Amino acid sequence: MAIDFREQLLLLKEQLLFKDTIRDIDSFDNIVIAGMGGSGIVGKIFQELYSEKPVYLVDDYKCPTFVSRKSLFIAISYSGNTEETISALAQAKAKRAYTVSISAGGKLSGYAEQSIKIPNSELQPRCAIGYMLMPLIRSFSLANSQEITKAYKLLMGLDDDSGECEKHAKRICSSSRIPVIYGVSPFKSVAYRWKTQFNENGKVLAYSSSFPELNHNDTMALAETYDRDRFYFFVFESGEEKISKRIAVTARITGAEFNMIEPKGTSTFEKLFYLIHYGDYVSYHLGLLRKIDPADVSLIQRLKKMIA
Amino acid sequence: MAIDFREQLLLLKEQLLFKDTIRDIDSFDNIVIAGMGGSGIVGKIFQELYSEKPVYLVDDYKCPTFVSRKSLFIAISYSGNTEETISALAQAKAKRAYTVSISAGGKLSGYAEQSIKIPNSELQPRCAIGYMLMPLIRSFSLANSQEITKAYKLLMGLDDDSGECEKHAKRICSSSRIPVIYGVSPFKSVAYRWKTQFNENGKVLAYSSSFPELNHNDTMALAETYDRDRFYFFVFESGEEKISKRIAVTARITGAEFNMIEPKGTSTFEKLFYLIHYGDYVSYHLGLLRKIDPADVSLIQRLKKMIA
Repeated sequence: MAIDFREQLLLLKEQLLFKDTIRDIDSFDNIVIAGMGGSGIVGKIFQELYSEKPVYLVDDYKCPTFVSRKSLFIAISYSGNTEETISALAQAKAKRAYTVSISAGGKLSGYAEQSIKIPNSELQPRCAIGYMLMPLIRSFSLANSQEITKAYKLLMGLDDDSGECEKHAKRICSSSRIPVIYGVSPFKSVAYRWKTQFNENGKVLAYSSSFPELNHNDTMALAETYDRDRFYFFVFESGEEKISKRIAVTARITGAEFNMIEPKGTSTFEKLFYLIHYGDYVSYHLGLLRKIDPADVSLIQRLKKMIA
Repeated sequence: MAIDFREQLLLLKEQLLFKDTIRDIDSFDNIVIAGMGGSGIVGKIFQELYSEKPVYLVDDYKCPTFVSRKSLFIAISYSGNTEETISALAQAKAKRAYTVSISAGGKLSGYAEQSIKIPNSELQPRCAIGYMLMPLIRSFSLANSQEITKAYKLLMGLDDDSGECEKHAKRICSSSRIPVIYGVSPFKSVAYRWKTQFNENGKVLAYSSSFPELNHNDTMALAETYDRDRFYFFVFESGEEKISKRIAVTARITGAEFNMIEPKGTSTFEKLFYLIHYGDYVSYHLGLLRKIDPADVSLIQRLKKMIA
């Protein structure tokens, strides 16, 4: 548990090179992915990127009724000891699904039919997102080696200079604002990733939603809520004209100040990891500015012990 | 467009008696439900209640790749003119899915293979949740007539006396707080419904999450965020011991004040509609207290015109 948090952030790019894959992915009708928090986000991201088969997410103790021999069930938990995920996996096994685990060890390892073991077990789960996501990216051919190399360089760029991220953090911190992140397809789940990073690294409440959904609800509140200046709105830029127009019109008619984040890179894979890492740095700097240890999640650990 | 908003709330209980069903539900491998905002919530609720087959939700323009002849595709839009939903339905038709629409008219009506037409076309979409949800509840046998009768009475009780809801609204309004709603299974999506009702009826920003997921992120922020007193936390009571313990421990170790909401009723169906209507009233009263018209969603209408 001795790796400095900044060092953990620097390790993300190396994780893109992790090569383990799921042995059998073709013979299933559906894919079910169980995971919570920093591990659960992996399933959310995958569900947005892959729609050749129905991908169903579990973020609780229960495995859905439909799971059968025809299901590929993937349990993801960095520690391998998340009780919700273990419970859902046990039920999936009883239903004869083909089960795969992705973890750095723990109870999950060796329990599923295939166990993918993450090399480094000393990271915070949220800092191991690359290790947990790459087996899915590679198994389902969602990125080629050129895109992975380019993404590596983009992450290195952010590691070398996260000054823009720090600027956002300063503006958030100086007036104690609540971050709100609006995602766009296929990065809606990355907006949720940012929310959780603000929660854990910056220890502030934070929220996410996405276009076009928020045009059906938040939009009224964006114009008329009290204390709008207490919020800090991040909006991911979209490559789709329809969505870009929605964003521009929403800003205009509500008067809300949107801080646009442009995902660098050409492929979806590059943009994905660029956005993820950008959010890592904004939340990390916010923690530092608040004089809070970004690594500390002692309360979450304490809770796990108290309910065990 | 002349029905008073309070009158619209009173109509919810009558909607439980709506009897139209989907003609064919048995011969499909998966179910895809497309819908946005106040109509989209219907799919979210159904996905929590039904897991005999994979239920996949679409809240954007695109229909997932896997949709085929073996898919039941349900497009839900109260107006029948939601552009995202129409776009996804058109793609589902091209993929030869069996398509069903639920709407009060509009372009959707007559476009799908089966069109379920909602009787009343003068409601706000968010006030027609019963009409849109009941065809799914009945088609998939998720409530019996006794439970429906009991739910009717529970809603009538809230219509007669929403004083408790008003008290919450007063406490929120008097110190300009931001509502945060924490759901529990199988009512996680109802927490999101409350969020959207606060957005539209009360015109305030509001957010939702659920147990146990929030124990992996929000928990740190609940203890250490700045300005925690600016938030007002609603937590739905859970019938499961494990989750109840999580809630109690979370409150204790973070020191956050949780306003517990007990879902009245015995069946899941009763509790579901009780919770929905309770949130209707809290957000409605908040709008009144803020001297804002709860019915008004003119900005959303304006946006739709500007992007058309």
